[in-house]
Amino acid sequence: MGYSLWNDRLVLDEKVIIDSQDRGYQFGDGVYEVIKVYDGEVFTLNEHLDRFYVSAEKIKLAIPYRKDMLMQLLRDLVQKNKLATGHIYLQITRGTSPRQHHFPEKCTPVLIANVKENPRPLANFENGVKATVLEDIRWLRCDIKTLNLLGPVLAKQEAYEKGCYEAILHRDGVVTEGASSNVHAILDGVLYTHPANNMILNGITRNVMLTCAKEMGLLVKEQAFTLEQLKTMTEVIITSTTSEITPVIEIDDYVVGTGKPGEWTRKLQKQFNTKIPVAIYK
Amino acid sequence: MGYSLWNDRLVLDEKVIIDSQDRGYQFGDGVYEVIKVYDGEVFTLNEHLDRFYVSAEKIKLAIPYRKDMLMQLLRDLVQKNKLATGHIYLQITRGTSPRQHHFPEKCTPVLIANVKENPRPLANFENGVKATVLEDIRWLRCDIKTLNLLGPVLAKQEAYEKGCYEAILHRDGVVTEGASSNVHAILDGVLYTHPANNMILNGITRNVMLTCAKEMGLLVKEQAFTLEQLKTMTEVIITSTTSEITPVIEIDDYVVGTGKPGEWTRKLQKQFNTKIPVAIYK
Repeated sequence: MGYSLWNDRLVLDEKVIIDSQDRGYQFGDGVYEVIKVYDGEVFTLNEHLDRFYVSAEKIKLAIPYRKDMLMQLLRDLVQKNKLATGHIYLQITRGTSPRQHHFPEKCTPVLIANVKENPRPLANFENGVKATVLEDIRWLRCDIKTLNLLGPVLAKQEAYEKGCYEAILHRDGVVTEGASSNVHAILDGVLYTHPANNMILNGITRNVMLTCAKEMGLLVKEQAFTLEQLKTMTEVIITSTTSEITPVIEIDDYVVGTGKPGEWTRKLQKQFNTKIPVAIYK
Repeated sequence: MGYSLWNDRLVLDEKVIIDSQDRGYQFGDGVYEVIKVYDGEVFTLNEHLDRFYVSAEKIKLAIPYRKDMLMQLLRDLVQKNKLATGHIYLQITRGTSPRQHHFPEKCTPVLIANVKENPRPLANFENGVKATVLEDIRWLRCDIKTLNLLGPVLAKQEAYEKGCYEAILHRDGVVTEGASSNVHAILDGVLYTHPANNMILNGITRNVMLTCAKEMGLLVKEQAFTLEQLKTMTEVIITSTTSEITPVIEIDDYVVGTGKPGEWTRKLQKQFNTKIPVAIYK
């Protein structure tokens, strides 16, 4: 779209060159973030960068930049690209080295970030989306936001082919999360969400929404629920950086609640909008 | 090392440029093979390419080259690089496209292959190696040889830090395979090996060794064994393209059998050598 961040420099997109021996390319040995931008304002940047550093640490990858510096570079990237509403994609890999599984002695991490103009999916917020249930076959460290995304890719593709927006994943009948979102469900004034353990990514939007829920007097239980329980829920929601708070109105062959986004979901969406740092979206 | 295969062309290594939006780089959306070369002769090329096409098919990636053409290109690559003994690294990704999880409508796969001079690890064959036991936390499609290798990378690193050559992985106490090898064990004239299902990669070297075993009158049982059973085995072996048939003589705090490579292992190694297409290695 114009300019990319390549390590600590802003360069024209086409100047970014990745080596075929980059460990990101051969092993998916790296971590990433997707960060929302509203009318030029970066949303929850601090939270995303905190998670970025934590993900990197969990795979023993030392990010060679200080957080405040990276924060400034990402803001510069948004400005340089004159990005209004869309997102930043940021990733870091362990770097380039002749292929071997264990970490190379000397290896300089490779960081890239770019931006994409991307309007808020308002129709989805308003009308809700369809989802399909698939088995969660991913590894057991879903708490780390790594580049090993083939599981989510294949799940998303299957959902897409079925005309669904998202795949709701389960392990042995217990709902974990979506292919690229967190999954939540509401029944009798209680919002249920999978605890933030190794089975799910602890979503930034998830946490913003949980804060909204608490502010509104909606009881939050960080408690996993089964597929059977999911069927009894009156409202189902997915959250992610780009999907924000999206109601799920159909899951495979059944309708959720009334088949329309529920009252709590509407209230959560409104409360979420108050958090956005730009007046026009409130 | 000199020349790489880049799609269907042989080019100088430094000419190979990977786009930062290659789905291999952002999702690990691709598959690979490592193929052994003995004194210029490519070993089990047909079997590796068959698996390469099967892996690709399992992730719904259509390789745009016919097998016989790819076979010739890989032989040309070996010749052009004057590779004696070492291996070919071959991978293909779904190609370059703006980031989205589901498959892009139009996307041309990106294939690369390069070679590396790499002597046979004869000292390991002779003396055996140490291994450590770690939990298998990988996804549930280990039968596909994908670029999502962070699980194996982290296991290998942990093994390396403990002074071990390999990590033996287990799920709930059942041995699956090594971080980058298959694991086998021998007791009372029976060779036990995990069945080739979704929990392990069906190794080419594994299959060559199983053929050797049958030729020698060693009974093969494709039957998983537990960590407890592993402790009672008199011989433990790991196999892979580069590790060939490597005896494991120590596992964490205990010694395997006599602490030296066992008799069946020696016989298997000898029989394996007869399969190598180069006289000097027999």
